[in-house]
This record gives sequence, C-alpha cells and structure tokens, in this order.
Amino acid sequence: MKPPVAVVVLAAGAGTRMKSALPKVLHALAGWPMVRHVLETARRLKPARIVGVVAPGARAVEAAFAPHRTAVQRRPLGTGHAAKTALGALAGHRGPVLVVFADAPLITTATMSRLVAACRQAKAAVGVLGFVSRDPTPYGRLIVRDGLLEKIVESRDADEAEKKVEFCNSGVMCIDGALIGTLLGAIRNDNIKREFYLTDIVAIARAAGHVAIAVEGDEEEFQGVNSRAELVVAEKVLQRRLRAAALEAGVGMTDPDTVWLAADTRLAADVAIGPNVRFGPGVSVGAGSEIKAFCDIEGVRIGRNTIIGPFARIRPGSDVADQVHIGNFVELKATRMGRGAKANHLAYLGDSDVGAASNIGAGTIAVNYDGYGKWRTVVGAEAFVGSNSSLVAPVRVGRGANVTAGSVITEDVPAGAVAFGRARQVTKKRRAGALRAKLKARAAAAKRAKKK
Amino acid sequence: MKPPVAVVVLAAGAGTRMKSALPKVLHALAGWPMVRHVLETARRLKPARIVGVVAPGARAVEAAFAPHRTAVQRRPLGTGHAAKTALGALAGHRGPVLVVFADAPLITTATMSRLVAACRQAKAAVGVLGFVSRDPTPYGRLIVRDGLLEKIVESRDADEAEKKVEFCNSGVMCIDGALIGTLLGAIRNDNIKREFYLTDIVAIARAAGHVAIAVEGDEEEFQGVNSRAELVVAEKVLQRRLRAAALEAGVGMTDPDTVWLAADTRLAADVAIGPNVRFGPGVSVGAGSEIKAFCDIEGVRIGRNTIIGPFARIRPGSDVADQVHIGNFVELKATRMGRGAKANHLAYLGDSDVGAASNIGAGTIAVNYDGYGKWRTVVGAEAFVGSNSSLVAPVRVGRGANVTAGSVITEDVPAGAVAFGRARQVTKKRRAGALRAKLKARAAAAKRAKKK
Amino acid sequence: MKPPVAVVVLAAGAGTRMKSALPKVLHALAGWPMVRHVLETARRLKPARIVGVVAPGARAVEAAFAPHRTAVQRRPLGTGHAAKTALGALAGHRGPVLVVFADAPLITTATMSRLVAACRQAKAAVGVLGFVSRDPTPYGRLIVRDGLLEKIVESRDADEAEKKVEFCNSGVMCIDGALIGTLLGAIRNDNIKREFYLTDIVAIARAAGHVAIAVEGDEEEFQGVNSRAELVVAEKVLQRRLRAAALEAGVGMTDPDTVWLAADTRLAADVAIGPNVRFGPGVSVGAGSEIKAFCDIEGVRIGRNTIIGPFARIRPGSDVADQVHIGNFVELKATRMGRGAKANHLAYLGDSDVGAASNIGAGTIAVNYDGYGKWRTVVGAEAFVGSNSSLVAPVRVGRGANVTAGSVITEDVPAGAVAFGRARQVTKKRRAGALRAKLKARAAAAKRAKKK
Repeated sequence: MKPPVAVVVLAAGAGTRMKSALPKVLHALAGWPMVRHVLETARRLKPARIVGVVAPGARAVEAAFAPHRTAVQRRPLGTGHAAKTALGALAGHRGPVLVVFADAPLITTATMSRLVAACRQAKAAVGVLGFVSRDPTPYGRLIVRDGLLEKIVESRDADEAEKKVEFCNSGVMCIDGALIGTLLGAIRNDNIKREFYLTDIVAIARAAGHVAIAVEGDEEEFQGVNSRAELVVAEKVLQRRLRAAALEAGVGMTDPDTVWLAADTRLAADVAIGPNVRFGPGVSVGAGSEIKAFCDIEGVRIGRNTIIGPFARIRPGSDVADQVHIGNFVELKATRMGRGAKANHLAYLGDSDVGAASNIGAGTIAVNYDGYGKWRTVVGAEAFVGSNSSLVAPVRVGRGANVTAGSVITEDVPAGAVAFGRARQVTKKRRAGALRAKLKARAAAAKRAKKK
Repeated sequence: MKPPVAVVVLAAGAGTRMKSALPKVLHALAGWPMVRHVLETARRLKPARIVGVVAPGARAVEAAFAPHRTAVQRRPLGTGHAAKTALGALAGHRGPVLVVFADAPLITTATMSRLVAACRQAKAAVGVLGFVSRDPTPYGRLIVRDGLLEKIVESRDADEAEKKVEFCNSGVMCIDGALIGTLLGAIRNDNIKREFYLTDIVAIARAAGHVAIAVEGDEEEFQGVNSRAELVVAEKVLQRRLRAAALEAGVGMTDPDTVWLAADTRLAADVAIGPNVRFGPGVSVGAGSEIKAFCDIEGVRIGRNTIIGPFARIRPGSDVADQVHIGNFVELKATRMGRGAKANHLAYLGDSDVGAASNIGAGTIAVNYDGYGKWRTVVGAEAFVGSNSSLVAPVRVGRGANVTAGSVITEDVPAGAVAFGRARQVTKKRRAGALRAKLKARAAAAKRAKKK
Repeated sequence: MKPPVAVVVLAAGAGTRMKSALPKVLHALAGWPMVRHVLETARRLKPARIVGVVAPGARAVEAAFAPHRTAVQRRPLGTGHAAKTALGALAGHRGPVLVVFADAPLITTATMSRLVAACRQAKAAVGVLGFVSRDPTPYGRLIVRDGLLEKIVESRDADEAEKKVEFCNSGVMCIDGALIGTLLGAIRNDNIKREFYLTDIVAIARAAGHVAIAVEGDEEEFQGVNSRAELVVAEKVLQRRLRAAALEAGVGMTDPDTVWLAADTRLAADVAIGPNVRFGPGVSVGAGSEIKAFCDIEGVRIGRNTIIGPFARIRPGSDVADQVHIGNFVELKATRMGRGAKANHLAYLGDSDVGAASNIGAGTIAVNYDGYGKWRTVVGAEAFVGSNSSLVAPVRVGRGANVTAGSVITEDVPAGAVAFGRARQVTKKRRAGALRAKLKARAAAAKRAKKK
C-alpha cells in the first residue's frame, strides 16, 4: 500500500492588507473561517496528518486547526522557512507532503489528488501545481522542459523568453517525504529580501538528480486572499459553486445570486428558496419545504413540507419539524417547533419548546430573559397561545390549553385549562372628544414651549 | 378575411432534470406558472383556439390550461406524436396552426406573429422559427436554399457542410391547417429512438411539392427550460424585460437587479422602488407611491402617494388607498386601508378594514384567528388604536374612537368612545434591588444545578 | 497667486424622459439629490463662487443650490444661452470659469482640476474635457490639430474624416473669465433648432486668435442622466466606487453588490457588513461594529463594537453608542442608545433615550405618539424593561428600575422601583374543551351562513 499523504497548511502570513484585528485566515467565507475550507478540502484526502504553520501568538488560528497540530513560525522568513517549521511535526512521515496555503481557500480535493497521484506516478521529489493565466505578469513561471519541471522563476527574475511563459506557479507543492528535510535544508536566503523561498527547491531537487513535475490546474482554484476585495472574489467563487450544486440537486431558487449559502448548508431536492435568503452555518432543510424571501437562517434542522418566512429569522440551536409554519417577523432562538406547529406573525420564541400542532399567536413573546438567567418556555401539543401574549419563563402551557389574547402568563397553565392574564375591557362612551381635546392642547402647549 | 390561427402548446415533457414533484411547466417564472407565459403570449394573437398537449394524469397542468382544451399524449413518442395528439382538438380548424412549447416561455407575441404572417404571405405549408447561434453545436440546423427551407438536420446527423450552418431550429412551427393532418401522418419513426420527430415534416412537405420557410428570431426567445439552472436563466430574462419596461414607463428603482416583478405587476409613472422588493402576482401601484427597501408585496391594489415599507409585507386580498403609510415590520393580509390611514410599526392586520385617516399604533394585532374561524376587525374612520393593542375579532372600533395603548379589546367600541382594556400601573418603590437579588440567585442556582 | 476658479452648474434641463414630477437633477443617487454630487465635487476645488443655472419656477432646485447663487434661464435656448445666463452672477470674476452639468454627476474633482490646470498652463481661452469612446457615433467630436483644439463638430455635421475621430466632447469646459462674456456673446443661433450652442465658442475663440485645448478624461465620468435607465447606470457607478473605497479602507462585506451606500457613509476599518444593507444619508459606524444582513440605516452615528441586525431599521436622529445590541425587527427613530444598552427583538423605540447597560425586552413599544404630539421616553441606566411593555410617553423609567413584562407604563417609574402594569393571571382548569367547542361551533355557523 502507498504511504499516505501529509498536508502542511501555511497560515502564518500577516494579512496587513485586510486592515483587520482578526487574523486573515479566520475571516469568514461561506460561513466558515477561511482556513477551514483548506482543512476540509485536505481532510477528504484522508491524510496521515495535517500540520498548520502559524504566526507567534495566533491562539485563535491554532484553535481553528484543532485537533490538528500546529507549528509556530517564529519569524517571517519566507515560505521555505515556513515549510521547514513544520518538519518537527512531520517526523516519521515517509509519504508525500502536500504544502498548501490557508489563504488560498478555493483549491479542490480533486486537484490536490491529481498532484499527489502525478508525483507518485513520476516518482517525483517535487510536484508543483501551475495554471495558465491570461495575464501571467505578477506570477512566478514554471519552466518545463521535456516534460519535467526545471525551475520556478520569479516574475522579477524572468528573462524575455521566460516572461512569455504563461504557465504560472500556484505555490502548491507536493514534496517527497523522504527528501523533504534535505531539500528544504538546501534552500538559501541569498536574495535581496533575505528570505527562504520554497520555490527554490525545484532547482535544488533537479540539481540533485531528482525528478520534478508540474501539474496544471484551473487559475480560479489558486486565487489567494490578501485584501478585502480578494476576499469578496473568493466568496463569489464559493457561492457560485454552492448555488450551482444546489440547483443541480433539484433545489429551486428564484434568484440564486441573492441566496447566500454556507459551505455546510444541506438542502433536499424540491426545496424552494425565494430571493434574499442568508444561510449561516449548520442548516439542513428537508424536501418540499419552502424558504420564502428575506430570511436569515442559522444552526437549525428544518423538516419536510415546512414553510419559513418571508422575513423570518432562525438562530442556532433550533429544530423545526415537518409541516411547520414560521411566518413574517418571527424569531426563533434555540427553539424546537413540533410537527405542524405554527408561529405565523411577529413573535419571539427563545429557549422554547412548542408541541405539535400548537398555534402561537401574533405578537407572542417567550420572555426568556430576566436580566440574569435564561429560562425555558414549554408549550404542549395542540395548545393555543393567543396573540400578544407574554409567556414569562420558566413556564409551561399544557397540552390543549388556551392562553387568551393579550395575557401575561407567569404561572404554569395545566393541560386543557384556559388562562387569562389581562384586564377586562372598560368602554367610556363619548369620551374620545374630551380626550382628544386634552391631547391636542398638550401638543399645542409643548409646541409653544419649544418656540420660546 | 384570413382564417384565424390555432395554437398548439406542447406540455407533455417529463422534466425529470428538474428533480421535482411539481410538473416542469408549472414551475414559477415571474410569479406565474411557466406555461401561463406561453398561454398569455399566444392569447394576444387572438387565436381561434388553443390546445394543450399534456402527459397522462397531469391534472394540475390541465387546470393551468383552462379554459382551453387539452389532449393527453398517452405515451412519449416524440414531438411529432405530441403534435398529432392535438389533431382531434383541431378538427374543423382551417387556418394556420402554430406549434409552441410550454417549456420555452420567452417567446414574444411579435415573433409568433411574424412567423404566421410570413407563412401566409409565402403560402407555406410549414414555417419554422430559427435563430443564429454563436455555438450551434447542440441544435438542429435549418437548411435554406433559394429562400426556401429545405429540411431540418439534427445535430448528430449533420454532415461537415451542414455543421457549419449557424441557423438553428427553435422547434416553433407554423403548419397549414388544411395540410397538418396529412403532414403529421407522414412522419415515420424509423430511427434509433423509435420517435416521431416533428422536424421531419419540413422534408415531407417539400417532397410533396409544398413551400416551407424559415423565419429568424432572437436566440434568447427560444431558450428552453429543462433544469433548475435553465429556469434561473429564464427568470433572469423575464426580470430584465420587466424591469426595463418599468424604467421606460417612468418607474424609479434604486437597483432594479434587486426588484423582482411579477408578469402582471402594474406600476404607474413616478412610483419609487427601493432595493430588494419582491412583487408577487396581482399588484398595482398608483403614481407617486413609494415602496421602500425590503418589501414583499402580493395581491394588492395600492393607491397614489402611499408609502410602504421598509420591511413591509402585504398579502393577497388587500386594498390600500391613497396617502396611506404602512411602515416597518407590518403585515397586512386581506385588509383594506382607507385613505390616509397609517400603520407605521410592528403590526399585524389580518382580515381587517381600517377607515380613512385612522392610526393603528405600533405593535397592534388584529386577532383574526381563534383556532377555528377567521374573523374580521373593522376600525372606523379617524379612529386611534393605541400601541400594543389586541383587537380580538370579530370586533368593531367605531369612528373617531380611541383605544388606549396596551388594551385587549374584546367588545365593540362605539364611535367616539374611549376603551381601556389594561391594568392600572402599580409602582413599588425601592423594590428592584430585592427583585434583582432574587433573580440573580435563581440564575446562579440554575447554573450550579447544570454543572452537577 | 492664481485667480481662483468659478463653477457654473447648468441645471435647467427639462428631463421629460424621466417621466417624473420631480425635477431631474433632484432624483436621488447614492442618497443625495443628483445635483449635490456635482456641487460637492466642485466645492473641493475651493472655487471663488458657484453659480447654478436653473429653469423658471424650479424652487426646489434653487434650494438644492443654496447657499450658492442661481440664475434663471427664462427660455430653453441652448447651452450657450444657459451659460450666458450665469454671466450676471459672474460679474467681477477674473479667473477660469468651469462649466459643468448637474445631470452628469460622475465627474471627479481630479478631472476638473486637471482641466483647469491645463488651461492655466496653456493660457487657453477655452479648454474642453473629452473622452475616447468605443462608440463615438452619438457624440460631438473634438478636432485637435497640432496639440490645439480646433473646433467641436456635432455628430450630425461631421464629415467622413471627422466621423472617424473617436475623441468625443464631454460638454465640460473651462473658459477664461476675462474672455467669457465676449466669447459667449459671439455665439449665434443660425441653425435649424435656433439654439445657442456652447460648443461653438471653441471655433470662435480660435478665430479670434486664442488658444483652445482638449483634455482627455474617462468616458464613465461624463455619462449624463436623461432617463430612469441612465439614472440606474449612474447609481451603479457610484455604488461601485463607494464599495471599492470601503473595502480598501478595511471594511468587510460579504457581498458588496448588495450593500447600498450613501455618498457620505463613513465606515471605520473592521466594520463588518452582511448582505443586503441599505445606508441612507448621514451614517457613521465605528471600528469593530457589525451590521448584519437586512438592515436599513439612516441618519445615525453608531459607535464601536456595536451589533446591529439582522432586520433592524434605524431612522434619522438616532445615536447608538459603543457595545450596543440592536436585534431583529427593531426600529429606532430619533433615539439614543447608551453604551452597552440592548434592544434585541421586535421593538419600537421612537423619541427615546435609553441609558447605558439597560435592557429593552422583546416587543417593547415606546408609545411616542398620541395622535397630536410626539413625546419622549427616557429610560435610565441599568434599567430592565420587560417584554411586551408599552411605555406611554412622556414617561421616565429611572435608573436601575424594573418594568415587569407585559406592563403598560403611564406614570414615571422612580429609580430602583419595580413597576407592574398588567393583570394577574387567572387560570380556569379544564375549560379549554368547552371554549373550543364554542369557537368551533361559531366557525361552523359562520361557514354555513356564508354558503347561503
């Protein structure tokens, strides 16, 4: 059996052009921190290990790599130095070592696999992913002769002939694990910037009589993210991929350009999505359900034949069963809606559990917070909670109970009971005129007072 | 007088690539089922009859054709067979027969008319709409010689010379009603798929000494919808047309790319529409009205100089007069708002009738549903409904009446009366400290209990 | 020192193609009336004076020019006549006179400056901004010989050689203030339309032995707005510029194409903006703050590390401090939120002042309007306003006070007090069955009555 691959993810770049306190590789793309995209892509290779190379003190980046090991690159001395930093964590590994970049999140598992497979077949010491660019000017060029990669020439060092080469260096490499220590150790920093360039190992390997190869991929997969504008470009690419995959799977979207998917959004066939829906991470939606326009949905399993929105917001920790209706201006947070339950208008259900076939009236608030603790509201099956009610948690409304409209419920309502928590109406005939005269006079007086 | 045209709409395709339980031609485009677009386009020709050809058991598709006749194609034996299926329903028709496709909804009445007129002028037995494509590879080619259409060659049957022809078959045909039976009857299925191809009738007609012609149209009009992705493309084309027509008519739109119109949306000149507005079917808006950002509007006549939104949702059966204000997080359902009435903040008005110049306070709910029936709320003119009120329907608030804020109104309020349905305030001085200490202790205890 | 420039802004065009009651130059672009863009761009030149030329009776346009002078062009006799109209207001001015168009709002200060500087250096009587167009057909051409501008030829008057010239007239001119009266006075209207064309002064100046020059700019900057569709194009250009500048400054945007900025929106570095956010004029947001998806924000200063949205609406006159949370379906109007204050769910706070660290519960309404006057609600620091409360203004809730959920507060609540304004709950056991039977029977009876 072939020895498995190891993946080194370089994540120590400074990212100053982002102008952000957040480390660059933690900026979100399709609902995930950037680095997670490369990690998930790498994981699908089933590597023996993954090693992150991070900057000193980047605790949050280290955490994003967990449970994988990270090595700290003490000083920013170039990509060759960064790769060398990972050597300790690679001790004992003999298979290919794939070196990828946390800030180039668009690479696919298929492309990674192709590089590794080509290196294995060619018994290459080094393999490099390249791409043909319409405008190769800014990139290093891959100089291939007789099917072998001869060297990588930086753009500024290219001679006239090399400048015409359109085959560019992506930076992604596969290095023979048995040779990686020797090859990286041979890189020198005798250049203006005093940096160790990983690209030098191609010429080093060839000089030592090893094989080096280049494998072509699609330019799009290698786009790096160094600025907010490039982050936007990467987001657009990811969204295009996710939307196309959803359409292909039979998801209906009125205007996919206005549906923002997370990398892990799972939508069944025949889910219908209106314009302007944002999915945060952790959402699955069952067949036949509809998400109408203007929804913001995150961290929830939604069942089948359920209708959400328009203007609904679902927050993490929620679970919405089949045939549920969640209507406009309704917020769910950490709330379970049982089969066929309804909350159709202007309601806040937080930390709640609503039983099957129950109806939550318009304007209902589950009062889950008292300034100190968060408390649960439990509504049994087939209950009817009247409009504009306040359910002051912790509180239970029993199965089949009725809460009358406008009630403040502070005590549990037993199953089958009717609860009132509102005042009786008092109507004073012919009094509106006098009231209005008073209000009008008050407004006029205030206006006069303001003028003074 | 020329004999009128008949239109045959082929709608029996399986649509498996949609991966949907809904028949393909019923998927929505610009707020209408796909097939309705072709039907409305055909109707403008004032045809003597329209005949739909549908798959067995497609009741919903048949219903979409009503009041037009449909013929059931028992087995999917090709377009020629489908057209033949309609012959019974065409009995007695002598004028031209236009054959169009329910899943090609972008064709215009003007293009249909041009084909029919050209056929009449040329006394053609068959006329075919074609288009010049940049990439003709997938399409059948129209082979024209000396101004006459000789035959249609399927892409896979084309020889080298024919492959270079860029004039492609749209599938849309006009067939002489006096000849259609004979021509369709002559189509054979001696091909690999054992299907009857409608395209064969061109060569059949020519062999019989008849005239056949081709008429050029715009490729965009002939795009078929076979997948979710193609549905998206068709939606984009329709939206582009609708938006351009609205701008031309003097409608202002901040960002038309985020305004979704229905095919029947009627907007007067000087209507202003913010970004992110979705119009469902059945909306008209009068001059000078403004629909602010983030609105979802369907089935409502809106008057002049009215302001809607942002974040308003209007559902079918509503009628909003002139100079009305509907503000943020307000939902109307089957509700009439009289001239100058206002509901500016967080309210649900369902099955309601609000009189002219009345003011509905923030947070007001028309409690229209009791779990069994839906009931109406009627508010007279110049009434004032205080904030956070619940109007428990069926209920009437009379002209000029005042409902005080926070009231639950269960009984009619006479004109000019003031209604209270709330408790009197009780203030307990210096008690917040003790209350908070209690709440804090409760939260701490719960936290401790959780840890265990 | 060089004599300063004067700017004449031509704003008297009819704008009939807009099909609008609003004068064309007052239509909004990036939150400002169109004419204000040209005014702000011109102001950055620090001109000695700005003069607007307006149509008779265009009071609103005159107001948009304030405090700058306007001259009324009594009859629409062409651009030359319009420029002449400004001569009175230019009396005494000796420096260059820049003539720009209120309906060409995309010109930049840099381009204006380049023209003025080039004119000064060349001691030109007239300088004209031109652009190279892919499709010059509709434009007048700038005929340059030996580095000097010879004349401007209208498209319809161009001979074959001139038609090939791709250098087009933008209309923007810089005229020597010492010569402007003479030059404009020499323009004649001996043409079919009987209009005075400003473009004629180039040939006039050259014939009189003066220098005329052309300066090239970018076509995009000179696009005029004559229709709704062109207004949309101009909006897109402005939005693209504003979004790119924000990204460059370190603002994060998930999908900048769905963020609508106003010309004066100020966003600090590391502000994060979700998809679908509309900024009206007058917004600034401090570093580290997040505006989540689906927000509509106008006229507010927002502090640092504050979280807004999703689905929040903030209206003018508001001030939101650091570390504030404004959640979904919350509206602020003319409201101050102190440091760390929270209003997370379904609330309307109008004309309110909420103290630091106070919590406004879900569904709370500040009842600011009684039908006649608007009144203020003042909530002290560290207060807790329970859910679904109505604060009937004018009213004060003191520091550290508690308002219980569902209360209607009509009287001031002293600091540290607990206020109740709700009924006590009454629960009737086993009564839901009877209630439901009654409601069910009522619904059935209504259904029967309807059928009759």
